[in-house]
Amino acid sequence: MSFSFNKVTIIGVGLIGGSLAKVLKSKGLAKEIHGSGRSRETLEKAIRLGVIDHMGQSTAHAVESSDLVVLATPVGTFTSIVTDIASHLKKGAIVTDVGSVKGDLVRTIECMLPAGVHYVPAHPIAGREKHGVEAATDDLFNGARCIVTPTELTDKTALERVCSVWQAAGMNIITMDPDRHDHVFAAVSHLPHAAAYAMVSTVAEFSEGSTNYINFSGAGFRDFTRIAASSPEMWRDICLLNGKNMVEMIEQYQFSLNRIKKAIKQNNGKKLEELLRRASDLRRGMR
Amino acid sequence: MSFSFNKVTIIGVGLIGGSLAKVLKSKGLAKEIHGSGRSRETLEKAIRLGVIDHMGQSTAHAVESSDLVVLATPVGTFTSIVTDIASHLKKGAIVTDVGSVKGDLVRTIECMLPAGVHYVPAHPIAGREKHGVEAATDDLFNGARCIVTPTELTDKTALERVCSVWQAAGMNIITMDPDRHDHVFAAVSHLPHAAAYAMVSTVAEFSEGSTNYINFSGAGFRDFTRIAASSPEMWRDICLLNGKNMVEMIEQYQFSLNRIKKAIKQNNGKKLEELLRRASDLRRGMR
Repeated sequence: MSFSFNKVTIIGVGLIGGSLAKVLKSKGLAKEIHGSGRSRETLEKAIRLGVIDHMGQSTAHAVESSDLVVLATPVGTFTSIVTDIASHLKKGAIVTDVGSVKGDLVRTIECMLPAGVHYVPAHPIAGREKHGVEAATDDLFNGARCIVTPTELTDKTALERVCSVWQAAGMNIITMDPDRHDHVFAAVSHLPHAAAYAMVSTVAEFSEGSTNYINFSGAGFRDFTRIAASSPEMWRDICLLNGKNMVEMIEQYQFSLNRIKKAIKQNNGKKLEELLRRASDLRRGMR
Repeated sequence: MSFSFNKVTIIGVGLIGGSLAKVLKSKGLAKEIHGSGRSRETLEKAIRLGVIDHMGQSTAHAVESSDLVVLATPVGTFTSIVTDIASHLKKGAIVTDVGSVKGDLVRTIECMLPAGVHYVPAHPIAGREKHGVEAATDDLFNGARCIVTPTELTDKTALERVCSVWQAAGMNIITMDPDRHDHVFAAVSHLPHAAAYAMVSTVAEFSEGSTNYINFSGAGFRDFTRIAASSPEMWRDICLLNGKNMVEMIEQYQFSLNRIKKAIKQNNGKKLEELLRRASDLRRGMR
């Protein structure tokens, strides 16, 4: 049997990294899968679950002679990992990632990697309600979108090989400029997370007797703030790495809130309905 | 068989009004249920579905000789309905409502009703993902909370009778001051709706080529903005009737957003993580 990759190393064997490992196995794309990460316990569990075959003594060790190295840790760790592994990568190795920030980070990683190593930046958009390797499944990516953000330096063959992995996982590939990616995802993903965190903080500041207002919330509030339960470290890193776009989006959002506030202050029902109707029509159009 | 109420009139036979009618029937609380509303078609459907027994030629006609009159239309219509029905209500009749704004509106309605008619303001917190009488079900309220907001003018017996109806529907009764109610629900319900409308507007202002950013959104954005699909007229009325609290809450929310924005601008990871972690812990605590 011929494999697409002899040795694949997944750095960060959580929900995303673990699910990708399962895809590589079930589709017969990798001969052996090595895992690396902060927690020895997680890696041992990943081996027990059959998600990976081996664990490295260190990340640098784990990537040696790998054909494909996948960064699947939080984006805030990427540059320090690349510093550690850069000199241990074999010539011709492909490094890819699953991070939700591209832009400057992509250009930084490109500069850090030695000549002859190919970097393909990617962002599979996959659900993250559950965490950890125990939640990994080979259908996590099926039917969802994977954004790839090649630059003028990206090797075409390496790009195709990475795309074919995500296609095997059932994903639809969308190609986007790295800076455009960060602007789009600041709007549709990073801003909503910041807004949900801010909403929980706002409401929690009030209480009625000994009962926090949060306890009076219903299904709407719970839906609205579900994403505020996500990892604070991960979102801290995303917000900072995508800082310029985040500031722009928060300001745009505050502007939209101001329009609604102004219509309420002026008791302008016609204007307020117009603002709400436009948003409501757009949202209904989304299904 | 002895009924709690001989004649009940439900004004607005939609999801909430229709579900209440079903509870009154299934629990044997009402001998006959009359319906009234804007749309003759809806009322005919409600009769066909067995939700109500009769429809009035007019709302004024429908409430004549009623023991219990329920306002289940959008809150923005309450005062004009009360104007229409006030002189047609029998002595001893109980008027109640299911509106999500109390405060000044409660005091206004109290002043409009003739002596001898008892007004009991209530707000059953029930899910509203589906609309219309066809979605009505007698278990809609089961296990949820009903806020009652009596004033010093509220008749104690009338209050008990209304509470017993909602208890029969499976609801837990919470008593709250009408002004406190509006402050609490501005925070946990009305603000999140305004914020979701503002979020959809913000993101929809951007596009990549011919593709609106909205189309790149994932499950998080959809959860976050689900409530923005709600009726713009209903939320216009709620925002305006609860205007003072809404302005306060929008400003508090903008303040929380500013704190996050500032930490991002200053690239202050420690501060940002602290803000996100606090919200995340609170949200996880909600289940």
